[in-house]
Amino acid sequence: MRPSQRQPDQLRPVRITRNYTKHAEGAVLIECGDTRVICTASVLDKVPPHVKASGGGWLTAEYGMLPRSTGTRTDREAARGKQSGRTQEIQRLIGRALRAVVDLAKLGERTVHVDCDVIQADGGTRTASITGAFVAVHDAVSWLIARGLIAESPIRDFVAAVSVGIYQGVPVLDLDYAEDSNCDTDMNVVMTGSGGFVEVQGTAEGSPFTRGEMNALLDLAEKGIRELIAAQKAALKG
Amino acid sequence: MRPSQRQPDQLRPVRITRNYTKHAEGAVLIECGDTRVICTASVLDKVPPHVKASGGGWLTAEYGMLPRSTGTRTDREAARGKQSGRTQEIQRLIGRALRAVVDLAKLGERTVHVDCDVIQADGGTRTASITGAFVAVHDAVSWLIARGLIAESPIRDFVAAVSVGIYQGVPVLDLDYAEDSNCDTDMNVVMTGSGGFVEVQGTAEGSPFTRGEMNALLDLAEKGIRELIAAQKAALKG
Amino acid sequence: MRPSQRQPDQLRPVRITRNYTKHAEGAVLIECGDTRVICTASVLDKVPPHVKASGGGWLTAEYGMLPRSTGTRTDREAARGKQSGRTQEIQRLIGRALRAVVDLAKLGERTVHVDCDVIQADGGTRTASITGAFVAVHDAVSWLIARGLIAESPIRDFVAAVSVGIYQGVPVLDLDYAEDSNCDTDMNVVMTGSGGFVEVQGTAEGSPFTRGEMNALLDLAEKGIRELIAAQKAALKG
Amino acid sequence: MRPSQRQPDQLRPVRITRNYTKHAEGAVLIECGDTRVICTASVLDKVPPHVKASGGGWLTAEYGMLPRSTGTRTDREAARGKQSGRTQEIQRLIGRALRAVVDLAKLGERTVHVDCDVIQADGGTRTASITGAFVAVHDAVSWLIARGLIAESPIRDFVAAVSVGIYQGVPVLDLDYAEDSNCDTDMNVVMTGSGGFVEVQGTAEGSPFTRGEMNALLDLAEKGIRELIAAQKAALKG
Amino acid sequence: MRPSQRQPDQLRPVRITRNYTKHAEGAVLIECGDTRVICTASVLDKVPPHVKASGGGWLTAEYGMLPRSTGTRTDREAARGKQSGRTQEIQRLIGRALRAVVDLAKLGERTVHVDCDVIQADGGTRTASITGAFVAVHDAVSWLIARGLIAESPIRDFVAAVSVGIYQGVPVLDLDYAEDSNCDTDMNVVMTGSGGFVEVQGTAEGSPFTRGEMNALLDLAEKGIRELIAAQKAALKG
Amino acid sequence: MRPSQRQPDQLRPVRITRNYTKHAEGAVLIECGDTRVICTASVLDKVPPHVKASGGGWLTAEYGMLPRSTGTRTDREAARGKQSGRTQEIQRLIGRALRAVVDLAKLGERTVHVDCDVIQADGGTRTASITGAFVAVHDAVSWLIARGLIAESPIRDFVAAVSVGIYQGVPVLDLDYAEDSNCDTDMNVVMTGSGGFVEVQGTAEGSPFTRGEMNALLDLAEKGIRELIAAQKAALKG
Repeated sequence: MRPSQRQPDQLRPVRITRNYTKHAEGAVLIECGDTRVICTASVLDKVPPHVKASGGGWLTAEYGMLPRSTGTRTDREAARGKQSGRTQEIQRLIGRALRAVVDLAKLGERTVHVDCDVIQADGGTRTASITGAFVAVHDAVSWLIARGLIAESPIRDFVAAVSVGIYQGVPVLDLDYAEDSNCDTDMNVVMTGSGGFVEVQGTAEGSPFTRGEMNALLDLAEKGIRELIAAQKAALKG
Repeated sequence: MRPSQRQPDQLRPVRITRNYTKHAEGAVLIECGDTRVICTASVLDKVPPHVKASGGGWLTAEYGMLPRSTGTRTDREAARGKQSGRTQEIQRLIGRALRAVVDLAKLGERTVHVDCDVIQADGGTRTASITGAFVAVHDAVSWLIARGLIAESPIRDFVAAVSVGIYQGVPVLDLDYAEDSNCDTDMNVVMTGSGGFVEVQGTAEGSPFTRGEMNALLDLAEKGIRELIAAQKAALKG
Repeated sequence: MRPSQRQPDQLRPVRITRNYTKHAEGAVLIECGDTRVICTASVLDKVPPHVKASGGGWLTAEYGMLPRSTGTRTDREAARGKQSGRTQEIQRLIGRALRAVVDLAKLGERTVHVDCDVIQADGGTRTASITGAFVAVHDAVSWLIARGLIAESPIRDFVAAVSVGIYQGVPVLDLDYAEDSNCDTDMNVVMTGSGGFVEVQGTAEGSPFTRGEMNALLDLAEKGIRELIAAQKAALKG
Repeated sequence: MRPSQRQPDQLRPVRITRNYTKHAEGAVLIECGDTRVICTASVLDKVPPHVKASGGGWLTAEYGMLPRSTGTRTDREAARGKQSGRTQEIQRLIGRALRAVVDLAKLGERTVHVDCDVIQADGGTRTASITGAFVAVHDAVSWLIARGLIAESPIRDFVAAVSVGIYQGVPVLDLDYAEDSNCDTDMNVVMTGSGGFVEVQGTAEGSPFTRGEMNALLDLAEKGIRELIAAQKAALKG
Repeated sequence: MRPSQRQPDQLRPVRITRNYTKHAEGAVLIECGDTRVICTASVLDKVPPHVKASGGGWLTAEYGMLPRSTGTRTDREAARGKQSGRTQEIQRLIGRALRAVVDLAKLGERTVHVDCDVIQADGGTRTASITGAFVAVHDAVSWLIARGLIAESPIRDFVAAVSVGIYQGVPVLDLDYAEDSNCDTDMNVVMTGSGGFVEVQGTAEGSPFTRGEMNALLDLAEKGIRELIAAQKAALKG
Repeated sequence: MRPSQRQPDQLRPVRITRNYTKHAEGAVLIECGDTRVICTASVLDKVPPHVKASGGGWLTAEYGMLPRSTGTRTDREAARGKQSGRTQEIQRLIGRALRAVVDLAKLGERTVHVDCDVIQADGGTRTASITGAFVAVHDAVSWLIARGLIAESPIRDFVAAVSVGIYQGVPVLDLDYAEDSNCDTDMNVVMTGSGGFVEVQGTAEGSPFTRGEMNALLDLAEKGIRELIAAQKAALKG
């Protein structure tokens, strides 16, 4: 039934490559099927003004797509002179998701600046960004600990994200582009390793969805995120 | 327990004033407690390029806050030269919520341009905007029908929105600013008159939330939205 | 002769509502006929760099129109990414007019930030903004005095503004939109309570105007401003 | 009494050089004392959208200052990415002043685009711009007539401008920078060759001005503008 | 002597991977040592206005760096709202270099839009971009021919680029970052397969360079570009 | 053969006028044939952040063209809201060229801000800007020495620039617009008084150029720059 022949509750193959580039403190390539995102975590010795007084640190995220990461070329945001509403929405989401599992007070007066850049898009770029960025942040934190810059990890739990949706009447896990552009309901879910919800963003693209459908989608998301967190753990061991 | 002395499942008083200004085809002032938003719906005889080919119409929304609608003055976005990520996120949400109940094909080659401007903010401005804007759109549609410009209403159902959250451990309905700025979880819910979900956006501000908490919040939201839709109906009869 | 049936030297009904919103130190709704402007005065504990050295304070003003305050929808300046030349001209005028009657040295190192937002436009929005903003500034100053933050009022005199013009060959007071868009000469006059001129801005829209016409217009403006200042005084007593 | 030793009613020396640069249809250098402005009038075969329907033409103006035309360097507006409010105010004034004496219907579907660029500033740059630009527009119109592109001149009258002000209590004509930055009242006056007023913009910089002072200033302006128009006529004969 | 232990006339290892991403008509990853750039060529069915009249096509290029492609994080240009002067200079250079070997008339009314995005920077990103982009353009042209959209290849010759410079007094080929940031003279050379110069851009960073040094640098560049073009040919065969 | 009847190795007449305007510390009008550029050098008592730590000074340049300095009107960059890529490329070149002969450490914590504004364009505006700006910087340095603000001149050598190109198959010196817009190869060369190269920027507009052509062009450039430096010396004596 699914264009990709997957089962309704089947994730796309996930691949997480650490140290994908050499400069960043954390540098991860995450591949979820054909969606590929470079996630870097940079440690900066400064914090934004609104954090200054707290004495603690900050974590922020930016997101972008290479112009031809998409099926037809998307205008370069740097050339247009502004980030789209969609881009801002996504980068705010990534930042909130990661901050939910990081104890900023333990970072010291530093910012972990996450950049998620989509090299190839095939649906689910924002959720892949969150899942990959968590590993990059983890590596940046290890870098801080290895240098003795912080004593204790500020990371409280794992966090990962996945999209779920209702495609041709059936709740499915991990939408690819073919599904995403034709589904009735699209929901992005962010969860922690201990199973708590950090974000649930469901949108009816076609007809409204019912409480029952919502429950089915959340069940799928929980399953998918468990598997994604397993993949993160495997990558961090590797 | 609540700063406003309300019951956990109690909405703030809602007041919807139609024809609040004289120029717009639909012009509503909605007041939810101390939150006051002017919602206008303007009928424009043009559609954006991506709609042109469809032959149908479009509905879009913009959102703004008067600089001193807030406790401390917020910079004027027109003076800063751009809309914040928050503003763009909200106006995209309002547009999606209203389009979910409007059959754009029946609008003809027209745009209904919704403007939601917050005169006074006390929490819940985005949900108040949706609830008020629906009434403004309804009035604009009546204006089109009265002039014989369209034969049939493109409005398929009512739509309204409310925020819910977990404040001091208790799920509560319709957060005001005092609650919103101190809650653990904040969820905005958009539903139709027939009880379908259009948007669910839940965010853990502090610790993650459980499936059980989510269910409690959705129950509150359903109750609140039923009451808000009743208020819309009363206003449209009045 | 006038579309509104008014006498040539007759103002539109003026209504000044104080404390129109709850957050600002001064918050006024001024209505001049169908023109309605929310004027707030915010007290900020900072001054712009060019004032820093003086030790005194500053007063500045911003102006905006809600997109559908006008007969046809005007683009939202925040969405377009810049303020129009007209907006900047108006907000500079409002700022100069108010500074003419405020002794900035007596404000201390503070800025009174005035915002004039037009809710409904029917001609004369810039002059209504000045007249209403004066009352908002007065309330903000009273707020400062009441809290013991300044000892003495920096307000030296009242200030108000009105438009005058030549409509169908006749000098008339307080142009509404129907007159404004068809008049030959349009003049905005700002005067103090003691009858001094702060600004005179006359523009020939059609044929040039004579010295005699100018004198007739100034006579009307003096009469109108006397009445507007009386309305300000009544509002401040009320 | 005046820093320049001039009489109160004495203009600075005026010099108008036509064909100052070789590309523009009209290209004038105007020097009013040490203020020097290059004024060009370019004939473009297009009109802005709002004029399209009229079948006639348009005249618009832009204004700029070279960064070091001023005593201390002013930021380059192109580098800052926007024109200041002052710049926009001035270029709108120049455009209105010139349109007041040009019958746009007789231009055909063309725009006369005026550019006024200040090479050296010593007060009165906006009024010098208007006086010089009129001569440039006159030359551009002659160019159109010489090529048989229009049959009849659309220019109805001469137009020129001057500043007047109250300096150390005395009304004076044609303020230079030393006076302008220390005067109580500053007024820019635009008049036609037949003595009609096109613009009067008076501002009290210090204390408000009286009706009597205004009359004295207008008398000075009338005298000055008569002399400036004589200089325009002499230049156009030369 | 060189930080990388290379001979003065030795290129870094070059690797060119075609079909690196799946959406673009040409999609190449070029690696010159640690410098890695994704070069895509997108075929668009439109041309910019200034090309419209020619009946032929256009080729344009854009360039960007991922924020953490560099040793310390560089601000994201999309977030800052504009491209730097450096970026614009580079993308103009890439476009000119490629257009020098493409007969635009043979493209038909199409644009080949090249995007060069630096994934990891270690010196020579602009020259690597040109060398890689040529292969991407070649693939896009093959795509056009394969679909019968054009009959004949518009590509007249190969083109590649390399940097040369004087490092510690010695002319060297293909500067990496360690050399580039400490060299006296830096020169970027673009040449065709037949050995003609397309661009020579030499800059003395420290002391001026002599004619003799220039000749030595050009000799190195000729050698390097011959090898790079051999690598392009090998990749296109592969 | 040349449109201007000049010999292939003949410069256009050069005229350098110092003290062209009165405010700047260095203010030069340079005329190369019909190309006229105002070059000012302003001394500012501040340095950009990246220079702060060095204790030394900085020199930067900005470039602009009056809208009608060109044959057809060019849009005003200040009105469009950004500088073109060409403008940025030119102003970066001017800055680099001048910094090559100035010992910034000897400037003290000051910036010399150069502005080159083209009054009339006829080819070679960027090279004329460099040649003229050097004289303006020299005057600004003399101003600093005369006031005792620096003890010793930071100027190490003269610097000037010229364009050369291949026009109808013949290498020619100092291209004017008629040649520049029809030449095969265009090269801008910046050299010091002692004959070292600071910048060489050659571009094949049509077919690629050979090593032999490059040598012929560099010979012409050396001759031209010797003459331009002689003109600078004469001007500085005058």
